[in-house]
Amino acid sequence: MSRTTTAVERVRAAYARMAQVDRPEVWISLRPQAEAERDAAAVDAKVAAGRRLPLAGTVFAVKGNIDVAGLPTTAGCPSYAYRPEADAPAVAHLKAAGAVVLGTTNLDQFATGLVGTRSPYGAVRNAADPQYVSGGSSSGSAVSVALGIADFALGTDTAGSGRVPAAFNGIVGLKPTIGLVPTEGVVPACASLDCVTVFARTLPEAERALSCMASPSGRQLPALEQRRPGPWRIAVPAPAQLGELDKGWPEAFRTAAAVLADAGAELLPIDLEPFTEAAAMLYEGAFVAERYTAVGTFIDEHAGSADLDPTVAAIISRARDIPAHRLYADNEKLSSLRTRALASLNDADALLLPTTPGHPTIAEVEADPVGANARLGRFTNSTNLFDLAAVAVPVGEVNGLPFGVMLIGPAFTDERLARIAGLLTAPPLRLAVVGAHLSGQPLNGQLLALGGRLVCTTTTADAYRLYALKTVPPKPGLVRAREGGGAIEAEVWQLPAEGLGALLASLPRPMALGTVELADGSLVPGFLCEPEALDGAREITTFGGWRAALSALPRSADPR
Amino acid sequence: MSRTTTAVERVRAAYARMAQVDRPEVWISLRPQAEAERDAAAVDAKVAAGRRLPLAGTVFAVKGNIDVAGLPTTAGCPSYAYRPEADAPAVAHLKAAGAVVLGTTNLDQFATGLVGTRSPYGAVRNAADPQYVSGGSSSGSAVSVALGIADFALGTDTAGSGRVPAAFNGIVGLKPTIGLVPTEGVVPACASLDCVTVFARTLPEAERALSCMASPSGRQLPALEQRRPGPWRIAVPAPAQLGELDKGWPEAFRTAAAVLADAGAELLPIDLEPFTEAAAMLYEGAFVAERYTAVGTFIDEHAGSADLDPTVAAIISRARDIPAHRLYADNEKLSSLRTRALASLNDADALLLPTTPGHPTIAEVEADPVGANARLGRFTNSTNLFDLAAVAVPVGEVNGLPFGVMLIGPAFTDERLARIAGLLTAPPLRLAVVGAHLSGQPLNGQLLALGGRLVCTTTTADAYRLYALKTVPPKPGLVRAREGGGAIEAEVWQLPAEGLGALLASLPRPMALGTVELADGSLVPGFLCEPEALDGAREITTFGGWRAALSALPRSADPR
Repeated sequence: MSRTTTAVERVRAAYARMAQVDRPEVWISLRPQAEAERDAAAVDAKVAAGRRLPLAGTVFAVKGNIDVAGLPTTAGCPSYAYRPEADAPAVAHLKAAGAVVLGTTNLDQFATGLVGTRSPYGAVRNAADPQYVSGGSSSGSAVSVALGIADFALGTDTAGSGRVPAAFNGIVGLKPTIGLVPTEGVVPACASLDCVTVFARTLPEAERALSCMASPSGRQLPALEQRRPGPWRIAVPAPAQLGELDKGWPEAFRTAAAVLADAGAELLPIDLEPFTEAAAMLYEGAFVAERYTAVGTFIDEHAGSADLDPTVAAIISRARDIPAHRLYADNEKLSSLRTRALASLNDADALLLPTTPGHPTIAEVEADPVGANARLGRFTNSTNLFDLAAVAVPVGEVNGLPFGVMLIGPAFTDERLARIAGLLTAPPLRLAVVGAHLSGQPLNGQLLALGGRLVCTTTTADAYRLYALKTVPPKPGLVRAREGGGAIEAEVWQLPAEGLGALLASLPRPMALGTVELADGSLVPGFLCEPEALDGAREITTFGGWRAALSALPRSADPR
Repeated sequence: MSRTTTAVERVRAAYARMAQVDRPEVWISLRPQAEAERDAAAVDAKVAAGRRLPLAGTVFAVKGNIDVAGLPTTAGCPSYAYRPEADAPAVAHLKAAGAVVLGTTNLDQFATGLVGTRSPYGAVRNAADPQYVSGGSSSGSAVSVALGIADFALGTDTAGSGRVPAAFNGIVGLKPTIGLVPTEGVVPACASLDCVTVFARTLPEAERALSCMASPSGRQLPALEQRRPGPWRIAVPAPAQLGELDKGWPEAFRTAAAVLADAGAELLPIDLEPFTEAAAMLYEGAFVAERYTAVGTFIDEHAGSADLDPTVAAIISRARDIPAHRLYADNEKLSSLRTRALASLNDADALLLPTTPGHPTIAEVEADPVGANARLGRFTNSTNLFDLAAVAVPVGEVNGLPFGVMLIGPAFTDERLARIAGLLTAPPLRLAVVGAHLSGQPLNGQLLALGGRLVCTTTTADAYRLYALKTVPPKPGLVRAREGGGAIEAEVWQLPAEGLGALLASLPRPMALGTVELADGSLVPGFLCEPEALDGAREITTFGGWRAALSALPRSADPR
């Protein structure tokens, strides 16, 4: 996250950005800038005093159903508002880590919706195209991040509220395993299913914030079985099982799967039926009664009030009459669907799904508030019912709007899911090699072991010198020539981002990684060497490359 | 269990006993004797052919809500009856282990009741006094065991149905952890809480049957923390928290606690309130709706039929209208009560409770069918709601009727609870020691480590000879004199039954355990020695005891 600025500078930039984007509907309670700056100054003072605050210099937004001391908790309903005495633990942990709260954000009332339009504070417009919905229920939080106002934001997720708006606004949404982040100080939607979630523009930023929020006193991590060694195994449903998707989305989803396959993952077929069947139960079944338990009495007492979103009020009010015996029957059905779903996930490390089936406009949702919303939860609704974890990531655009996918896995696979998602958000890096890592040379196996694949064979720009260093065995030293020099044979390899890190970590002196200019003028990371290594080294530029020099030079170049 | 007879002989004895006791209301579907004898003959043939069948030679009864192939499953309602194609897995496992089914037994209809009177097949009378209720809902099963017809019997337990009838009929009832025994083929009462249970006259018989029923594919045993070393810690509530008990019961309960303390257990106070509060929720709260899920439609369709017990039908029918949002609220309340209950159990190995607060007559239940029943579940109702295990054992009589207590612990503590219950059913054994196990002698620590305590110091009857054996170091050899002999100093120790077994298992040759006559003419187990050890041994009878001989004899008696 942005650490080059002070916390105060970061707060000022956030308020400047708000003025620039003019999206007042994002906020329910925006803090006065001076107040946020005071908090930021306190953070800067602590950092100056030597305190290590992992989130110093960041600003965040909090969904309006999560307690922030000093701001009203509205849950999207003005007359429901109360003033919490304390921050929700999730908020308190972030503040303690140095992050500064900007305010509380708009949401689908009582977190009931996936659209972002069900709020008396106004429909939240999409960050990329204001005619489209932002997605909900964590609408304002997602848009505040997508527009670059907040570095990250808190949402909640019961049926998809922490992921649908991530997909619609082109950002990352982490939906942790139920119980990892405390839900104290959160207005319940379905108390047994609710999760606090994180939005950020990049996966590392989201993970950093999440790591500061998870509670040591929370749900205990069980001893997880080691995953079988080998490539990631990603379950991908057949196109027919995805049902109708928006135009261009089936192709975009196939592309995401192909990116994973290109990065070395094995794609497995999976039967999606138990997932979609459970998803349909979320609003059609008895589970919606849990929303009545949370706020039903309030809604009944305020029937007809303009404070209530009529769609939300109708959904929750109707749930009053759902009988308990039907809930028992639904729980039994859900339990058998869950057994099937987990069994079908058993061979895979994660399930890849589009985050939603499509992206409606605000007008489309107004025309069919319940139907348009229901469609959006097809892939997200079952996640919490099945006690799964999920990571939603953006993977490009379709028709000028963001497109996103989810990786879903069993409870406590949060870190694994983020690592796999990283293959989608951090595309493989390129690396130019000129010596022992060339195909067929002794160290080429390192690249293969790290998941590398050969992209092309080329040369450096006509401006490099190559040396045989006096190492044992001799290593090639590539240096940019101050003048003159030649074109050196090079291979460009593609490596997963984490693979490049591993390579760097194990790099022996005097080798270095830097930037190499290729014949076509492009700049890619590549092997160089420390200058001091050139003392006494033999220049072999004229051979045009390491392989040619090796065959021409006597073996005695190797002192052994 | 009875292994001295053949299976066929055991079956004949069972039917003879049935004729003798004349309690027809115990059975709903009794198998023809010839059919049971055919099964028994097949068992005998297998045993003769060398098959090891742990339950060969035993007969059992099955509660009428559990499937037995060839018999109708009635759940206590004639028009509900169906003919199952297969045995319930629990029954199948017992048959495979060589046990022979006698028939299916009477029960409180749909397993809804703790009295044993709610059945169109007639009220089941108590085994000890037919004016009193048998307890329910597993009424016929318990009485069939108590009257010595069956060796063991299957019950079910949702709110106490596997324990209340055990207490009222003076037998053992094991209520395993939910999920250990499969509930397939059982008519659900509350599907998420139901357990298959075992009745037997002794704890080892009950445990043997249970070990044959538990399914390897059932709920997985988690890695249990090792219990802290030291004596058993038994939580015992203050008398005031037990509420009103029948006359003489508070004293009987105190006696049971004192027996545990005498056996070395540490008694801890505990707050019983979360247990009794949850117990009250079972019928007063929304949980009863799960019974409507199971059989509510059937009951509504047969309203007014003579096949329906009016009390049961009214309870279940009323549950139709319980709203699901109330169930969510009750589950939340239960969850917080459970947290409190488990926390208060945390320091203890088990909770000791009376199984019920009292024992009504059949006439008293007829006068107040709901109230009399509700009182009986005060201590049992919360067990399954809290996901606990329980063992109910008889501990003598009060006013000529059996009195029973329960040991309750967290899920998967089944074996621990049975071990502790064993201290109540198998009172400590006595052991006479005359040598190295005497107080202050080198091996006395063995007795202390096994939980032993000194009862008295005495002598043997005036008819023993004592030898110093030629072992290294010399051991005392006590033998009954053919004639003459003297009285030898002895201590009587009290050991838990399992402690004595451990002592025997580690006994070095030529020492032996046999029966020793004491000065007062009583016979107690004690240390003797093998006859061959006397060759060359020095008789020391005249010293009057090992200690006296040791101080009188030169140290050189020890060859070292």
